[in-house]
Amino acid sequence: MDQSPHHHTPSGKLRARGAGIPFTGTPGTWNAITDVAGVEVGYCTLIKGEGPLIVGEGPVRTGVTAIFAHGRSNPNAAAFAGHFSMSGNGEMTGMAFVEERGRFDGPITITNTHSCGLARDVTAQWLYAQLAVSSKQDQPFWLPVSAETYDGALSDINGHHIKAEHVLAAFDDARSGPIEEGSVGGGTGMRCYEFKGGSGTASRRVRYADRDWCVGAFVQSNFGKRHLLHIAGIPIGTEIPITAPLVPDAENGSIIVIVATDAPMLPHQLKRIARRAAYGIARSGGIASNESGDLFLAFSTANRAEVEQHGGLISVESLAEEAMSRFYEATIEAVDEAILNSLFANETMVGRDGRVVPHIPIARVQSILKRHGRLLETR
Amino acid sequence: MDQSPHHHTPSGKLRARGAGIPFTGTPGTWNAITDVAGVEVGYCTLIKGEGPLIVGEGPVRTGVTAIFAHGRSNPNAAAFAGHFSMSGNGEMTGMAFVEERGRFDGPITITNTHSCGLARDVTAQWLYAQLAVSSKQDQPFWLPVSAETYDGALSDINGHHIKAEHVLAAFDDARSGPIEEGSVGGGTGMRCYEFKGGSGTASRRVRYADRDWCVGAFVQSNFGKRHLLHIAGIPIGTEIPITAPLVPDAENGSIIVIVATDAPMLPHQLKRIARRAAYGIARSGGIASNESGDLFLAFSTANRAEVEQHGGLISVESLAEEAMSRFYEATIEAVDEAILNSLFANETMVGRDGRVVPHIPIARVQSILKRHGRLLETR
Amino acid sequence: MDQSPHHHTPSGKLRARGAGIPFTGTPGTWNAITDVAGVEVGYCTLIKGEGPLIVGEGPVRTGVTAIFAHGRSNPNAAAFAGHFSMSGNGEMTGMAFVEERGRFDGPITITNTHSCGLARDVTAQWLYAQLAVSSKQDQPFWLPVSAETYDGALSDINGHHIKAEHVLAAFDDARSGPIEEGSVGGGTGMRCYEFKGGSGTASRRVRYADRDWCVGAFVQSNFGKRHLLHIAGIPIGTEIPITAPLVPDAENGSIIVIVATDAPMLPHQLKRIARRAAYGIARSGGIASNESGDLFLAFSTANRAEVEQHGGLISVESLAEEAMSRFYEATIEAVDEAILNSLFANETMVGRDGRVVPHIPIARVQSILKRHGRLLETR
Amino acid sequence: MDQSPHHHTPSGKLRARGAGIPFTGTPGTWNAITDVAGVEVGYCTLIKGEGPLIVGEGPVRTGVTAIFAHGRSNPNAAAFAGHFSMSGNGEMTGMAFVEERGRFDGPITITNTHSCGLARDVTAQWLYAQLAVSSKQDQPFWLPVSAETYDGALSDINGHHIKAEHVLAAFDDARSGPIEEGSVGGGTGMRCYEFKGGSGTASRRVRYADRDWCVGAFVQSNFGKRHLLHIAGIPIGTEIPITAPLVPDAENGSIIVIVATDAPMLPHQLKRIARRAAYGIARSGGIASNESGDLFLAFSTANRAEVEQHGGLISVESLAEEAMSRFYEATIEAVDEAILNSLFANETMVGRDGRVVPHIPIARVQSILKRHGRLLETR
Repeated sequence: MDQSPHHHTPSGKLRARGAGIPFTGTPGTWNAITDVAGVEVGYCTLIKGEGPLIVGEGPVRTGVTAIFAHGRSNPNAAAFAGHFSMSGNGEMTGMAFVEERGRFDGPITITNTHSCGLARDVTAQWLYAQLAVSSKQDQPFWLPVSAETYDGALSDINGHHIKAEHVLAAFDDARSGPIEEGSVGGGTGMRCYEFKGGSGTASRRVRYADRDWCVGAFVQSNFGKRHLLHIAGIPIGTEIPITAPLVPDAENGSIIVIVATDAPMLPHQLKRIARRAAYGIARSGGIASNESGDLFLAFSTANRAEVEQHGGLISVESLAEEAMSRFYEATIEAVDEAILNSLFANETMVGRDGRVVPHIPIARVQSILKRHGRLLETR
Repeated sequence: MDQSPHHHTPSGKLRARGAGIPFTGTPGTWNAITDVAGVEVGYCTLIKGEGPLIVGEGPVRTGVTAIFAHGRSNPNAAAFAGHFSMSGNGEMTGMAFVEERGRFDGPITITNTHSCGLARDVTAQWLYAQLAVSSKQDQPFWLPVSAETYDGALSDINGHHIKAEHVLAAFDDARSGPIEEGSVGGGTGMRCYEFKGGSGTASRRVRYADRDWCVGAFVQSNFGKRHLLHIAGIPIGTEIPITAPLVPDAENGSIIVIVATDAPMLPHQLKRIARRAAYGIARSGGIASNESGDLFLAFSTANRAEVEQHGGLISVESLAEEAMSRFYEATIEAVDEAILNSLFANETMVGRDGRVVPHIPIARVQSILKRHGRLLETR
Repeated sequence: MDQSPHHHTPSGKLRARGAGIPFTGTPGTWNAITDVAGVEVGYCTLIKGEGPLIVGEGPVRTGVTAIFAHGRSNPNAAAFAGHFSMSGNGEMTGMAFVEERGRFDGPITITNTHSCGLARDVTAQWLYAQLAVSSKQDQPFWLPVSAETYDGALSDINGHHIKAEHVLAAFDDARSGPIEEGSVGGGTGMRCYEFKGGSGTASRRVRYADRDWCVGAFVQSNFGKRHLLHIAGIPIGTEIPITAPLVPDAENGSIIVIVATDAPMLPHQLKRIARRAAYGIARSGGIASNESGDLFLAFSTANRAEVEQHGGLISVESLAEEAMSRFYEATIEAVDEAILNSLFANETMVGRDGRVVPHIPIARVQSILKRHGRLLETR
Repeated sequence: MDQSPHHHTPSGKLRARGAGIPFTGTPGTWNAITDVAGVEVGYCTLIKGEGPLIVGEGPVRTGVTAIFAHGRSNPNAAAFAGHFSMSGNGEMTGMAFVEERGRFDGPITITNTHSCGLARDVTAQWLYAQLAVSSKQDQPFWLPVSAETYDGALSDINGHHIKAEHVLAAFDDARSGPIEEGSVGGGTGMRCYEFKGGSGTASRRVRYADRDWCVGAFVQSNFGKRHLLHIAGIPIGTEIPITAPLVPDAENGSIIVIVATDAPMLPHQLKRIARRAAYGIARSGGIASNESGDLFLAFSTANRAEVEQHGGLISVESLAEEAMSRFYEATIEAVDEAILNSLFANETMVGRDGRVVPHIPIARVQSILKRHGRLLETR
């Protein structure tokens, strides 16, 4: 087995690249958002119960994902950021602040639709606990970023099973290096193109101004009707049509995209990057459907000290605008691959009421792509 | 005592109009957002403890405000809406949805900065409980509107004292008719122009197309340095300068404005209304300072059945654009008066560490205005 | 030769569909934006001179495109509209008005970057001339929509060759039915994926609420580096690499997209449609590069009388939101096909300084697609 | 007579401050946008003809204003910028570019509604002429900023009297130092609160980080019904009611605000500044009425070399966010004073059809303010 983290997740799941899907661009070491130095990702996954849905009891297929821009050891660190709501049928808290101040502070969380408020408040509570604030001081406050997608097709979403401890567990799990994908963390109960979706990641190296930079993408994929799916440009979704739809209307989908880069970008440049996530989603056939919450956030790990400076003048580094196109291309490639990773590095899940969301049939996809001359040889 | 609800709150606090502050326009019956038929407001107020701040214990000066567009008896009702973030150092969840779909569903909550995530999730939980959803059905979800301002100057904001029960209590308290103002509900621990601020409301009648319409405003006021305050155009803030500032920097302020109308407006028209809230804030001297979260939401109670209709075509009523200016004027007047009501219909509060936020000295304000020929005779 | 307007333009140029490119969805009668009843398109094309660029003399490869929502015979007609700036390195006048009022009035013009100001003012002048305004009356004014892309690679853009007469000629040329594509009107001097680009159109039928609706797209394509081009998902751009680049940096590209529909949509719904144009561009490989002005406008021909009504209340029809996804899919398909039509229904152009922008080599594209099992048999 | 440029314009017109209107804050040397080093303003004023309107002949009461961020001698200079459309019933070209790139290049022009397209194109033409571009080179292009307000109440707006030569004359007139106000340049034919309006300017000094900075505002005022006007907080508009309205509906108003600063601000900070112009307009009673185009642009003259740098990395200076509030206050004060200057430093104008727009009656205003204890003694 190829030991490259480009081909398998830490637990051994086959990633899209490992399955021979062709991509352009050059990934970073782990082909993950964690290739951006400082970025750490943690998961807490809740899977319990089987059989019929009893609201408040289960079955539970949910979780929490935490992303730190500057590592768990710098909990309150800030980053320049920009966002875009391609389709606002979702929630990403903190977006008014990102627009106003061009930044966010502390970890990002992603969970299910009915728990992102909790994740937001717990983040503030945890940040407070990390600081040695005297109670005599003026009390600090935060406006954390917490996003969501809907997992009610498989999980007891109205049972509100996520508790503070699960958010904290995701923080504690944060790490750099290769990270798990598929049905983990906030991505646990997700569907994508009516296959099992969830957490996915990828990265690209970008050469500019005689230096190597990195762009990393992380997605929580939960969108798309089957017939729309294209892989490597081939209409896989019509070749593998859905036979027994999980639910009458599979439209309640969404996708959260987090893009990280170590390249120095100003807030208005990061908004430009965030908008390009849409093109990454379009590559596999996404249309940002009516019920879809397609919310994107891009941040830069550069200029940290300056973003956090109080008072005075700051001197921040930035890419000249001419650099942007190659970063767009990298972003789009990474988002597309992250989505496919969320499909490939996954497995079939049985959820509430015995509902089955199938793993994408990799061999069949390979066979179709091969027929179309679009499958790469892999070791 | 004048028994008009224009002059006193239900508990007898003197409102700005009762104190002789001159305003233009004609208020509705109660001079409150509840003059818009269907709108109900409920509060849950938490005041406990005195003395030094011990995080997690208190003192507590906080609460929750709930606003229903179509009354508590129609919990899941929807309304066309538009929003505007004048200054995004705050949170109002659900705004991506409002922009995308031009509507919101269910009650609006307003509370402190670290509890609006909880209020959001609890709203979804409560909405679920109100519906007779079979657990076999596809599970519904919500993206509730929950806003916040910071009460950490007076209250143990990092103690997270708001619990689900307090949100539910605010829902249960919802009512039409005259409503309380000042240090109640989410407005409990607020400062405004370095006087005691909090909850305030006002309304205006608008004559258009041979019918009477109503615009109502509700604010949670928590903004402004003293020297900026103007009342009836007179620089009260420099005439009543601050002598002993509560905290070194009083900038952590914000204002949430909710505007309701029974006039039929489309989402893009309601965005126009929401933006005008800024002009109402400017009348008393607001500048939307660096740390201020000035977030506005406007909604219409008209077209309810159409907004909620699934499938098919809908036929919605709307004002011709020519009507807008008079609704702008009404909105601006109501927002201005609601802010002043939050100052006048209030009282001095002692919070954490013995910090005192004083009630605006009404007699002194009256004396200054009288000197400038700007005080009205009141009965 | 297949006489279907799906396969050839009025002048006989082969369209993408005629070349065997596979598309999903069902086009309207002419597979053009003019399939939306009322929509008319007119061109004025300026091609003169050869050889070296002499600014002010030529060579000239430019023009003007005019689009009427309700036909040239209703010059001042209004339409509900929404817009989106995916990448703002361009100009589309009237966008502040579209955002504010949810509509535009009069014809849309599209021309080169340095002439859209003229086109805008001339539109107002022409509209005035169409009306029988007494000079005693209050003088009407307009805020016309005029967009641009850059044709300076082939044409003497700094010679400002477009005059009022050319704008008027485009108005006079307006027609329904099949319309020409390629190097005509504002699209005359355009490049797309470093092939000859320009004007393109397509349409889709949408079945909803027991009725047939139509979505039509019109593009002025001027974007994209060669290596990005994908057709039917196959990386044509890397298989037909560019050998002699026209200019060192081919990034000065842009795309204007106009989407029309006869389905009744409110302004906030049309903004949603406009955003989806991005997904149509992504299908062939667009990335909205740094120098690209990707500006989209969507309008509905429904509710005309209501949009134009002065005073009172209006009653407007609208799709329930559940309808949107199928209109998104139609929009994306039509935008993608319109772009490919602008490439296929075109021809090689020689411009300033003998610069050659080649027609896409259709036979070679067909051969590549055939090899990948992605070419349709055509009659 | 007081020779201070704070009290009179270069031609001797009395400014608001000279008339004893009280303001807060400290103006710069000339109390003008030109106090920001580098900023130059030029006017071309067209006044010809009297009597009945004959479209195409006159009477003409219009003009062009040009504003250079870095002086006429640096025609193509760029500046970081941010914009806001408070009420989009107007036009300011270049705004998609400002949002995308956080900057603009070349001079800003302001003229009447039907001529800002011409002004835009002529700006590109003039910029080209200033550069020694070889015709062999890739042709440069621009997306100039050109804004407008409506002067059709006094002038033959549909006669399109502004020609290229007038735009060039405004460029040639550009200067630093004290600048004229009132019925000059683009402001020639304007009304404000149903008095004569037009061009106005003011500035404020801001102390921050041990340095003196400057904020300057320039307005083209053309908005507001009489009853709304407040000066120094006193309802002047109801005390000097309109007796013979100029036209049945005076709503066709607008205001363009340009804010300049030498303080280093990033694009997202300049958007924040631009939004605050609304609060400056509100101080005198503005409501951004239905027909009003209230469009604001803020720019910084700092970081010029970096904004213009092609390729590589740039290092830009910026204020820490904590600085913003004092710049907001300065912006709001300067915008308010600039509007009042456009009223005071003006004179009665007779336009088309003998229509008279009166100069604000200064002595009467002074008398009212004195009665309310709100008039300053002036030398």
